[in-house]
Amino acid sequence: MAAWAERLSGVRGVLLDISGVLYDSGTGGGAAIAGSVEAVARLKRSPLKVRFCTNESQKSRRELVGVLQRLGFDISEGEVTAPAPATCQILKERGLRPHLLIHEGVRSEFDDIDMSNPNCVVIADAGEGFSYQNMNRAFQVLMELENPVLISLGKGLIVARGYSRLQVEAWINGSVGQDGEKSDCSLLAVRELPHTEPRYYKETSGLMLDVGGYMKALEYACGIEAEVVGKPSPEFFRSALQAIGVEAHQAIMIGDDIVGDVGGAQQCGMRALQVRTGKFRPGDEHHPEVRADGYVDNLAEAVDLLLQHMDK
Amino acid sequence: MAAWAERLSGVRGVLLDISGVLYDSGTGGGAAIAGSVEAVARLKRSPLKVRFCTNESQKSRRELVGVLQRLGFDISEGEVTAPAPATCQILKERGLRPHLLIHEGVRSEFDDIDMSNPNCVVIADAGEGFSYQNMNRAFQVLMELENPVLISLGKGLIVARGYSRLQVEAWINGSVGQDGEKSDCSLLAVRELPHTEPRYYKETSGLMLDVGGYMKALEYACGIEAEVVGKPSPEFFRSALQAIGVEAHQAIMIGDDIVGDVGGAQQCGMRALQVRTGKFRPGDEHHPEVRADGYVDNLAEAVDLLLQHMDK
Repeated sequence: MAAWAERLSGVRGVLLDISGVLYDSGTGGGAAIAGSVEAVARLKRSPLKVRFCTNESQKSRRELVGVLQRLGFDISEGEVTAPAPATCQILKERGLRPHLLIHEGVRSEFDDIDMSNPNCVVIADAGEGFSYQNMNRAFQVLMELENPVLISLGKGLIVARGYSRLQVEAWINGSVGQDGEKSDCSLLAVRELPHTEPRYYKETSGLMLDVGGYMKALEYACGIEAEVVGKPSPEFFRSALQAIGVEAHQAIMIGDDIVGDVGGAQQCGMRALQVRTGKFRPGDEHHPEVRADGYVDNLAEAVDLLLQHMDK
Repeated sequence: MAAWAERLSGVRGVLLDISGVLYDSGTGGGAAIAGSVEAVARLKRSPLKVRFCTNESQKSRRELVGVLQRLGFDISEGEVTAPAPATCQILKERGLRPHLLIHEGVRSEFDDIDMSNPNCVVIADAGEGFSYQNMNRAFQVLMELENPVLISLGKGLIVARGYSRLQVEAWINGSVGQDGEKSDCSLLAVRELPHTEPRYYKETSGLMLDVGGYMKALEYACGIEAEVVGKPSPEFFRSALQAIGVEAHQAIMIGDDIVGDVGGAQQCGMRALQVRTGKFRPGDEHHPEVRADGYVDNLAEAVDLLLQHMDK
């Protein structure tokens, strides 16, 4: 592999994934990953442009940023690209009035959106909100439209609630691991979400269905295809780059997800580093399809390298 | 089209669809279709073999037969081929112990099935039973299996509850009808189900998601393909023929569903008549892919023709 100087030359902007890079979500609001608070601070003091780029869709930016600020991060709402606000922009641009099938935690993002007489459906990881009644309501709204539009915040398969990465790995590798392909497919989509209510945790811990399956159900029943807003969609990365005025070839993504972060960014013309934190697995460094421009132990190491090899 | 004598020559056995051919389900237990009670009686007095072949999966055979007997039909449980008992036979043959995600109304069909330590999932139109919790439990059972098996009782898209066929047609044609393909796709899968509780009806009437979408969600999330038990699966028709010892080329299906009944039976080597009752629509007689061996006003006319042209 080429020297770091070559691989990092000409970088002017940095996109940072949040969960698994800045902090590990989990019990009690989560914990900062060692060195990440300082790394973000150093990056923001440097000439490099910085943007946070997350697929979080159960928390509003306000709540997410609140969690991160309490952990010591220098971050504000206006610096975050997330599926819900990106969707709001799309809704406004196209005159769409959504029927929402989403988690209550993210509903405030849609506060200034006209929801009268809906002409599209927005679906996100609604958790317990995926009741038969709610699914039917979304289905009926779509069926009543001449040109049904379904927007999905991400298309993840599985959420692992109340489990550490290692527990999830052990589960998948132990129980399903004979089938290499499925293990991979499952783990790639695992997101670790916090659980704050013990009762809820007890009832629903384990591998849970994420929005992807429910998106498929509506696609199938209505004979339509959803528009996915979130990584690895190229439009999503482009909107993050646009916000900091940086071209793709001058930008680098730092994430823990070899497919969603690294592969997605590269397909968009960006470079991408994978950190060995969050949902990183050793096997990621030999992924059959995606090869990062570099693997680093954590965000702190990534920022060291970036600042060291930055064009002066 | 050839004369009836030619089209019906050599028929020795008849498969009868139930809903929309014998009776229209709906408010208050449903109503016999004019002439059908007598037609079934005449058929059973004739030398022709008779078998009832239904996709009903919210009622046990006992309950279904009870409804039909109260309407005057000569029918017994042992004469009915239905997805739930067909599934039980598959489970026993293959040593499968199911986790059930089904409607309570059909649960008694599984009374003598071993459900300890499940090694497969059986999914059917569970209605309100399609909660996030129940879907997750089914998903988790599948994920824990080395070779996950998912059996689906039918793969219908949409159920129309508490609506007449005409209301559903008007709805679909009026609201979605600009897009011919989707209208077709939707209507083909419509089943009219009775609603017995007014509260339930008020809350959930209209077009509702059937098992198909939920089957797709599990397929997608687990990376597997479901085995579908019910029309138009060839195995299902074959099991009905086997029960009366009649070969496919000697058998005729009588149904109201141009794709599920007529197309499915023909692909199995049988002949098939479509009745102009139940979910029949005039457009069915010009269906782009399926052409029945004959169209008749109702079961009574079909039986008239069959008895008239039967080999003496």
